[in-house]
Amino acid sequence: MQIAILGGTGDLGGGLALRLAADTDHEVVVGSRDPERADEAARSYGETLAERGLDGTVRGEHNPDAAGGAEVVVLAVPAEPVVETVESVADRVAEDAIVVSPAVGLEPHEAGFRARAPHAESETSGSVAQLVANATPEAVPVVGAFHTLAAGRLASLDDPLDVDALVVGDDADARATVAGLAEEIDGLRAIDAGPLANAPGVESLTALQLTLMRQNPELDDVGVQFR
Amino acid sequence: MQIAILGGTGDLGGGLALRLAADTDHEVVVGSRDPERADEAARSYGETLAERGLDGTVRGEHNPDAAGGAEVVVLAVPAEPVVETVESVADRVAEDAIVVSPAVGLEPHEAGFRARAPHAESETSGSVAQLVANATPEAVPVVGAFHTLAAGRLASLDDPLDVDALVVGDDADARATVAGLAEEIDGLRAIDAGPLANAPGVESLTALQLTLMRQNPELDDVGVQFR
Repeated sequence: MQIAILGGTGDLGGGLALRLAADTDHEVVVGSRDPERADEAARSYGETLAERGLDGTVRGEHNPDAAGGAEVVVLAVPAEPVVETVESVADRVAEDAIVVSPAVGLEPHEAGFRARAPHAESETSGSVAQLVANATPEAVPVVGAFHTLAAGRLASLDDPLDVDALVVGDDADARATVAGLAEEIDGLRAIDAGPLANAPGVESLTALQLTLMRQNPELDDVGVQFR
Repeated sequence: MQIAILGGTGDLGGGLALRLAADTDHEVVVGSRDPERADEAARSYGETLAERGLDGTVRGEHNPDAAGGAEVVVLAVPAEPVVETVESVADRVAEDAIVVSPAVGLEPHEAGFRARAPHAESETSGSVAQLVANATPEAVPVVGAFHTLAAGRLASLDDPLDVDALVVGDDADARATVAGLAEEIDGLRAIDAGPLANAPGVESLTALQLTLMRQNPELDDVGVQFR
C-alpha cells in the first residue's frame, strides 16, 4: 500500500513514518504544505533508517500529491488545522482510499487537559474524527487511530512500543484495514473501538495521558495498554 | 488501618474487600444498609480466603457503624445512590478519615458508554468524585480511585491484576495514603492524577473500557496500564 502522512514533518507524523518504513513494506510518503520541507524531512528519516541498517525509504511530496496516490491518508496535523488540511486534498483523495485521523483537540485547564474538538460545544458533542468525516468526500471512510501514541517514543526506533492503538470509525472494513496496518508496526496492538460515535471517548484518553504526564514527570512519552 | 467498604456486598466492593484482606494487614469491614447482608457477605469472603489458605478476615457491619470506625471509607456503590450513601454516614465519618470514590456515572449510547455524573449537564461539568466531595463534611478529604478495576477480575483472587489505579483528589496527603493502600494490593500500581478538577477525565476512562469490552467480547474484565 501507499501511505501518505500529511503533516509528516511534525513529531507524530515523523514517528509514524519512521515506524511504518522500518517495520512494514508499504510505500511511505511524507506530505507537507511545503514540498521542500517534505523532501527535507523524508531525507532525514531516510538517514535515521540507514543509520540503523534498515532499508525502508520515505519520499516527500506536496500534501495534495501525497494524498493523491495513497490508499491510506493519515492527517498527522494538530486538531485546529485538520479541517483545512482535509479540504486542501479532498479532490485528490481516491474514492477507495481511507482517511486516518490521529488528532485530538486539547483544552488545558488548571491541572491537566480535557479533550475538546475545535468548535465543539462540549466533550461529548463532537470529536476531531467527526470533523474530519464531515469535511471528507462522502464515499471515503474516515478512521480515528494512533491518538494514544507518544510522538517522541514513536520516533525513537530503539524504544519498544508495547502499547495499544484504538481504531474508531463507521466503516468496519476500513477499521480492519487500519487495524491491520497498525499491527504491522512492532509492539503495537490495535483494538476496535467501534463507530465514530465512540470517538469522543477515544480522543479523551489522550487528554488523560497528558494530564497524567503533567502530574507525574517520570511518566514520559507514556502509552496505554488495555489488559 | 481500618478500611470500611460501604456497598461491600456488591461486585466491586466484594472484590476490593477480598484483595485488601488477602494482600494487606488492614482491618477490612464490609458495610451494607442491611447489617445481616453485610454479615453474610463478610462470612462468604472469609470462606473464599480460607479456601485459599489466606488468613485475612473480613467483618460485616451496618454502613454507619462501618464508616464510624474507619480511617478509609470506600463508597463501593453505583453512582446514582452515592450521594445518599455519603449522607447516611456523614455524621459518623472521623475528621481525619478519607472518603474514597470509585464510582462512575455511565450513560449508554448506541455503540458504547459515556461517563456522566448523575445530574451533571455534561461530561466535563462534573464527576462522581466531586458530587461525593460536595456531600462529605468539609474537613474530610475525598479521593477518587479504583475506577478502572474490573470487579470480576478483582474478585477472582487467582487472576493477576498487573494494572494501574488512578488516584485523584484535592488533598495531596490523602491521595498519597490511598495510593499507598492501592499499591499494597499485589499487581496494582497507583498513578497520581492530581486534583478533583481531573476527575472527569479519570472517570471517562471507565466508560471507554466498557465501550471497548462491548466492541470486543474477548476483552473480558479488562484493566488499564499506562506504559
